[in-house]
Amino acid sequence: MTAAADTRLYDAIVPFDGERQAGISTPAQANLNLVGFNLVDGVDRGAVARLMRSWSEDSRRLCTGETPLGSLEPELVVAPSNLTITCGFGPRVFEVIDAVDKRPEWLQPLPEYKLDQLEDRWGQTDLVVQICSDDPIMLAHATRHLVRSGMDYARVFWMQQGFLRAYGAHKPGETPRNLFGQVDGTVNPRSEEEFNEQVWIADGAPEWMQGSTSMVVRRINMNMDTWEMLDRPSREEAMGRKLDTGAPLTGEDEFDEPDFTATDKFGLPVIDQQSHVFRAKPAEGHPEQRIKRRAYNYDIAPEPGSEQLSNSGLVFLCFQKDPLLQYDPIQKRLDEADRLNEWITHIGSAVYWIPPGTSEDGSTGDAYWAQRLLEA
Amino acid sequence: MTAAADTRLYDAIVPFDGERQAGISTPAQANLNLVGFNLVDGVDRGAVARLMRSWSEDSRRLCTGETPLGSLEPELVVAPSNLTITCGFGPRVFEVIDAVDKRPEWLQPLPEYKLDQLEDRWGQTDLVVQICSDDPIMLAHATRHLVRSGMDYARVFWMQQGFLRAYGAHKPGETPRNLFGQVDGTVNPRSEEEFNEQVWIADGAPEWMQGSTSMVVRRINMNMDTWEMLDRPSREEAMGRKLDTGAPLTGEDEFDEPDFTATDKFGLPVIDQQSHVFRAKPAEGHPEQRIKRRAYNYDIAPEPGSEQLSNSGLVFLCFQKDPLLQYDPIQKRLDEADRLNEWITHIGSAVYWIPPGTSEDGSTGDAYWAQRLLEA
Repeated sequence: MTAAADTRLYDAIVPFDGERQAGISTPAQANLNLVGFNLVDGVDRGAVARLMRSWSEDSRRLCTGETPLGSLEPELVVAPSNLTITCGFGPRVFEVIDAVDKRPEWLQPLPEYKLDQLEDRWGQTDLVVQICSDDPIMLAHATRHLVRSGMDYARVFWMQQGFLRAYGAHKPGETPRNLFGQVDGTVNPRSEEEFNEQVWIADGAPEWMQGSTSMVVRRINMNMDTWEMLDRPSREEAMGRKLDTGAPLTGEDEFDEPDFTATDKFGLPVIDQQSHVFRAKPAEGHPEQRIKRRAYNYDIAPEPGSEQLSNSGLVFLCFQKDPLLQYDPIQKRLDEADRLNEWITHIGSAVYWIPPGTSEDGSTGDAYWAQRLLEA
Repeated sequence: MTAAADTRLYDAIVPFDGERQAGISTPAQANLNLVGFNLVDGVDRGAVARLMRSWSEDSRRLCTGETPLGSLEPELVVAPSNLTITCGFGPRVFEVIDAVDKRPEWLQPLPEYKLDQLEDRWGQTDLVVQICSDDPIMLAHATRHLVRSGMDYARVFWMQQGFLRAYGAHKPGETPRNLFGQVDGTVNPRSEEEFNEQVWIADGAPEWMQGSTSMVVRRINMNMDTWEMLDRPSREEAMGRKLDTGAPLTGEDEFDEPDFTATDKFGLPVIDQQSHVFRAKPAEGHPEQRIKRRAYNYDIAPEPGSEQLSNSGLVFLCFQKDPLLQYDPIQKRLDEADRLNEWITHIGSAVYWIPPGTSEDGSTGDAYWAQRLLEA
């Protein structure tokens, strides 16, 4: 074990500034704190701008391992460990800043899905801050710093904590697994071209929106107790993929294209038409029905009185130009007939506009999150 | 970045079997699930023995990266990432197994401390399982496996989750920090001799107890809001140590012995007599007042209606031969006058007997946890 190996995570930095916010196309870290804030009474456009300036400046420093102004804890900021901080606006912010006419059409509650069992405590908030790091202490400290520095403007409504494999506990580029044991995130944009097609808002949008995107948050409870009653073939059939490799049931490799026309010796489809893979694929002639998934697992103490032995699931996060055109049709198809629905329940839902990236000197357009919108 | 570096955590294994249980003197991992279980009605000595046999066998396999019997999830057990699983008995187990005469004197609720604000929901349970890993997915899967495999015998009462720095985000041997930014765990046994003196029950005890120890669990809320109002010198005075290096205020290095006789130019003690360091040191002539601290940070969603902006603190775990002789006198002195009490509150408390280690062939005496006690 060499010193170099042991300090490599310590020093790892994801640039905070850029055309787009970090934490979306950048590699997913091991730990997530997704914090939903509500603005306090009396906050207006000027106050939102002050909060965004202050949070952006603090985040820039935290993500680069520098001590933010006013911090008393330099020892807790030395190891960013790939820290990213990503901020978004809920629908009400556009009312607060008196800019309802600028609010994107899609920034509203998602359509209701028949199987939803949404709980208010995991519902829409005014702001979201997605904080991710490969180090849980850095994560906690960055979260604490922003909660405190924003306390005059916004208060925590919920905090959704999640995790993936630790840094070093997986091979580079390996697709993460969820707690059902499934490879989760195979179909995802990876190239810049794919991100431009699916995620980043660009041409046609006003300048202050270019480079922005949307985030959908769905809290999905996974019933481990009933799932574990299934044998492996039944699990694979429900998903349409093999558990070991993540390959479609018609292929050998995780990234093989599923062959939905293939049939077995009885003439039945190899990939069931109610499998997750079948239901999630873009509809014929609708290549825009793709999204960037960036889901985290959760596993917390069982609720008192719960019948489930565990309290596990997904903090499902996805990014796309337009949730109504891209996420909604997929979720409608899943809600109608995905076989996985027997073991999963959507219990939380929210949508946010994710402003473009920033630059310290303002050369990208915004020196702090949403500056051009807030100072227009 | 080489493939070797990226798989080293993946393959890291802490031996499950041994004279003592792992997870006590072995290096602290990044992630903790401390699970308090209560036995279900009707469980008797034979059932406890069956549970211990089953949990020991499953744990042995999980910790070595092998799939436990009956598991459907081989993909989730490939990367132990230093997984350890450590089991303990609360006082009631000795009643259930009809062996009250064998129960250690100290296996009872700790004396009340005047500042305690204990909540039943973090109180004593029949069993405790301490699960630690450097990988949060391995941690969640191991926890789930044991919860399910034990469901006919025991149900989860609480789960206390905690974290330290990620593997690779600190230098080897570096003492961890808590969320107050303090180095936490400087005074700890490190050599085998120190562990024999302070932690492992040996000579004079019945054979089934030799190699066992006790675990004290204290859940300690840390009020970040009021702590952060202090400037750095006041924080250092309250602790008696420097924040940057963790050195005592009379020294330069973390491991320098504090000089409690040193005075400043006004003749006042450099280390305040109400500082944490002063209060925590063994009383004159009582070198046995030492413990193995293995505390984890917690940081979870704020409670609804809480006045604190954050919900942070310590899952304080310590191990010692006898909590009444070793932990209690320290905690009494801290409870009486530790200046840190202004910012911390003990909200949970429990004590467990931690059986000796195991060996697959029974050559250490127990093929499963507490076999000699349970089969006596």
